Amino acid sequence: MVEHSGLDIMNKHSPSSSSGSSADSEKKLLSKLKVSLTKKFPQKNAETLSAQYGTNLLLIGVSVMLALAQHGPVVREEHLLTFITVLMLVQLVWMLCYMIRRERERSPLPERDAHAGTSWIRGGLTMLALLSLIMDAFRIGYFVGYHSCISAVLGVYPIIHALHTISQVHFLWCHIKDVIKKYETFERFGVIHAVFTNLLLWCNGVMSEAEHFLNNHRRRLTALGYVNLTTVEAEPQCNCSTSVCSMFSTSLYYLYPFNIEYHIFVSAMLFVMWKNIGRTLDHHTNHKRPTTRSSGLLLGPVLGLLALASSITVLVVYLIHVEKSVEMRQAAISMFYCYGVVMLACMCGASGAGLLIYRVEDWPMDTGQNPSRKLDSELLLGSSLGSWLMSWCSVVAVAAGQSSQSYRWTCLAYSLLLVLEKCVQNLFIVESLYRRRRDPSGNEDQSPATVPEIFSVAASMVPPYDGIINRTYETQDKRSLEGELPENRQVYSRKHSEVSLPVGHRLHVTPGKKRQILKNITSFLFMCNISLWILPAFGCRPQYENDLEQEIFGFGVWTTVLNVAIPMNLFYRMHSVASLFEVFRKV
Amino acid sequence: MVEHSGLDIMNKHSPSSSSGSSADSEKKLLSKLKVSLTKKFPQKNAETLSAQYGTNLLLIGVSVMLALAQHGPVVREEHLLTFITVLMLVQLVWMLCYMIRRERERSPLPERDAHAGTSWIRGGLTMLALLSLIMDAFRIGYFVGYHSCISAVLGVYPIIHALHTISQVHFLWCHIKDVIKKYETFERFGVIHAVFTNLLLWCNGVMSEAEHFLNNHRRRLTALGYVNLTTVEAEPQCNCSTSVCSMFSTSLYYLYPFNIEYHIFVSAMLFVMWKNIGRTLDHHTNHKRPTTRSSGLLLGPVLGLLALASSITVLVVYLIHVEKSVEMRQAAISMFYCYGVVMLACMCGASGAGLLIYRVEDWPMDTGQNPSRKLDSELLLGSSLGSWLMSWCSVVAVAAGQSSQSYRWTCLAYSLLLVLEKCVQNLFIVESLYRRRRDPSGNEDQSPATVPEIFSVAASMVPPYDGIINRTYETQDKRSLEGELPENRQVYSRKHSEVSLPVGHRLHVTPGKKRQILKNITSFLFMCNISLWILPAFGCRPQYENDLEQEIFGFGVWTTVLNVAIPMNLFYRMHSVASLFEVFRKV
Repeated sequence: MVEHSGLDIMNKHSPSSSSGSSADSEKKLLSKLKVSLTKKFPQKNAETLSAQYGTNLLLIGVSVMLALAQHGPVVREEHLLTFITVLMLVQLVWMLCYMIRRERERSPLPERDAHAGTSWIRGGLTMLALLSLIMDAFRIGYFVGYHSCISAVLGVYPIIHALHTISQVHFLWCHIKDVIKKYETFERFGVIHAVFTNLLLWCNGVMSEAEHFLNNHRRRLTALGYVNLTTVEAEPQCNCSTSVCSMFSTSLYYLYPFNIEYHIFVSAMLFVMWKNIGRTLDHHTNHKRPTTRSSGLLLGPVLGLLALASSITVLVVYLIHVEKSVEMRQAAISMFYCYGVVMLACMCGASGAGLLIYRVEDWPMDTGQNPSRKLDSELLLGSSLGSWLMSWCSVVAVAAGQSSQSYRWTCLAYSLLLVLEKCVQNLFIVESLYRRRRDPSGNEDQSPATVPEIFSVAASMVPPYDGIINRTYETQDKRSLEGELPENRQVYSRKHSEVSLPVGHRLHVTPGKKRQILKNITSFLFMCNISLWILPAFGCRPQYENDLEQEIFGFGVWTTVLNVAIPMNLFYRMHSVASLFEVFRKV
Repeated sequence: MVEHSGLDIMNKHSPSSSSGSSADSEKKLLSKLKVSLTKKFPQKNAETLSAQYGTNLLLIGVSVMLALAQHGPVVREEHLLTFITVLMLVQLVWMLCYMIRRERERSPLPERDAHAGTSWIRGGLTMLALLSLIMDAFRIGYFVGYHSCISAVLGVYPIIHALHTISQVHFLWCHIKDVIKKYETFERFGVIHAVFTNLLLWCNGVMSEAEHFLNNHRRRLTALGYVNLTTVEAEPQCNCSTSVCSMFSTSLYYLYPFNIEYHIFVSAMLFVMWKNIGRTLDHHTNHKRPTTRSSGLLLGPVLGLLALASSITVLVVYLIHVEKSVEMRQAAISMFYCYGVVMLACMCGASGAGLLIYRVEDWPMDTGQNPSRKLDSELLLGSSLGSWLMSWCSVVAVAAGQSSQSYRWTCLAYSLLLVLEKCVQNLFIVESLYRRRRDPSGNEDQSPATVPEIFSVAASMVPPYDGIINRTYETQDKRSLEGELPENRQVYSRKHSEVSLPVGHRLHVTPGKKRQILKNITSFLFMCNISLWILPAFGCRPQYENDLEQEIFGFGVWTTVLNVAIPMNLFYRMHSVASLFEVFRKV
């Protein structure tokens, strides 16, 4: 009752005020003002305030990072790490307070949002967290080796980070579904603090990773005799006291991609928790449907595994060849683009087929409130931006450039397909997420199971409309509530519509078949997206090497574009993997 | 009826299919598929698809601009202008089609969103459009002068732009409030095309303006003997055939700020129109309340005018002094920061006082659906980001830098106040926009007028809650609908609550007084935001000149930050001016 509009306070005061003395009533006004100041922030205001707090935390971190990127003598990595460590400690304290408070008021179980942080996504996060912990261990080992000449902050940071990772995973498992309705101000600030702390950790990971990659790139160019750039990697000033320091620092960069994904995923999950604060759940839509059976699942996974295997081959060949002579390098880039064109064309085809199936099938959309799903689709669109900008820059470069690289036109095809593929895949995923679930049994044999499902849909009080209200449909909905069951069944029952549509039978696209096809498509896309995540995550970034764009945009601008676009693209791939898994379970 | 879920199609087919032959039914399936492909896109999908189309248009433009920024020999301004001209022509054709179509089906008046594009905002836009037209005239004059040696595109572009401006203003006056429910696909793509065409025109304006400013800055630095940078401004290769060419090109840059604001405002308005497509209006909330009286309005406007006058003085003094010796330059920068600190402190105080008044007053929030208002508050937060990043960079620079400029600590205070001022002002504006309107009469004398207002609120079926549902309140709401009018009146009527709260009377903060104070605060903030828009818009940008940040971040990074942050900040100021005007009318 912290944040409501306060009319009851007004009511409470009204009887007493008619008989109170002047001093009494002034005291009351003051105490009322005090109450208003500490407790009565309307939801919208509290949201704005906490969002502003979080954003500014992130921006402080980003500005320190920008200063750090100059490698000046004043702002050093220790400063940034100290700041992040403090933020992590604050988050730790908050999580502890939150859990203790929840523990105390154990009896009334809090409401839980069934759509937030599904168990498989928490499982995936736990895996990523484990890899992050290994990374912390390596960092501690590195610090031990060089402890005589590097700042103590570099030793404290991984310890706090490990502690932070462990408690955060525990927190996610126990509390991510909570819909907070009590003591909201404290919770709201805590959750947004956690969101932006993780975002800052993500930014830090991305920056370190990009810098490491750019240094490697410069070293390679110097070795090939292209340019003579001095690398600016800060090496400790003393020798390592143990023998495994270089092993630690090399291995770190193979673990970075996982650490980066871990933090961005945690932010997205916590953001949903923040959005859920003070929300009133709709009990009719707030339950997860059980997973559908996955029979007839063969072609999709097989093709997907094939794609994955070929991607790993391409990655290894590329990384070996790109270090060698100029011809080998160009051959490696050509190979990458050819592979990419084939891969993306297949993905476009698969997503397009999925969309076609949805077009044939007539089933209403689900418009119930679901912050988790809304965020999912917005993040898909938002994170596509980086990659689209990169692609259009490539297109402009190919169109304008006069260079005669053999891969020029393949690069053009690759870039255009990349734009198309993201568009079609986004449409497919968004449509799948917003589709109302069909009843799990697609066949006539299992008809008894379908009836309760039908009624639960009809009684759910959420009028099934796609934005504009479909009057015909609505009337039928009402009629069904009044008991006109046969007509209702004619509309909703999949079984009945099959009987009345023998055409579908003859062409063998029964709902069960359709579901099978969709499952295959989804699993194929799932594997493909993993493949396309692996390639850039582990260093296959021909955009740096192909010289097409650098010629037109200059090294500075193009590197900036890539440094922004590649992390966004990595996040896009991982996020679409997660969304496709959700789709797979739902279809 | 284009986009609904299609169940009626299914119904139409079911009777015929039981008697149809095989060939017939296959033909029907094909035609059904055709219908589904061309017409039945669910709202969510159509939104995603059109958003993707628009985003990619913008990104193509941005990538050409990035290439242009390199001043390479291949990508030239003509290419960009040709692309933009084509987009404007497409928009022109679309607007024509839309208006013809609306004209034809004149009889059923379309629904209109009362909150979208109020008449005063359209009036303001018309002013900006007029200034844009003058700019086009100057451009045409410039082209005529140099026509022998510059591309014809530079002559066609301003003509099309003028045509585009005139028709767009006409379109905004006649159709911006339309809530489109028929032929949605065509309209959706048209509107989003218009949104992103205007955004691209905004980007183009921002880029030209930033380049011009940077060239001036470089020239100034060279004159002061700081650096020896060659300017890269492209001058035509021949002499001007008329005598006024240089006048045209100089005047252009004084008109740029207005042109830039024009395009971004139009995009925001069109975006609301896009959001409204297919929306079902809530008739209880969809009406504009009349403007409140503005008696007792003196202190706010007077102080505001004072602020405006001092800003213009500061602007003139700054622009004169910064061109002169190093000492004069430093004195000008010092003056700017001192002025800024005073100004921002006053603004913080004013917004804070406004928030305090809201805290004392107990009045529910308005949670009705209103895309226009939602966009307003999101844009306020979003456009603050740029300026916040700039401020935090300054803070880091002051904290880390060892330079001994006299204005170092004033700069720190200025930056911190800038962050605080934006936070508090955002909170004030957001809270004002989301407040439910009080009844227009604050005094007891006018009580008869309040009664219908009260009932219209009680009967509006939108439960007044701030996010979480307030059970007590809700019950009262229901009771009031059942006819228990005395109690209802006790809760809602301002008159009654005043009688029962004599405390408020004694301290003379009656609702009428409060409204007066709020009006004064709003008008003061309104003028202050105009002042803070004028300064950077006309070239007072000490962030480029003060050397504090360049030392820490380097010229490249800092210029990039400023080139992004300053346009965002300009938009923020103009947008808050518009929002404050809305608040002023509403309070």
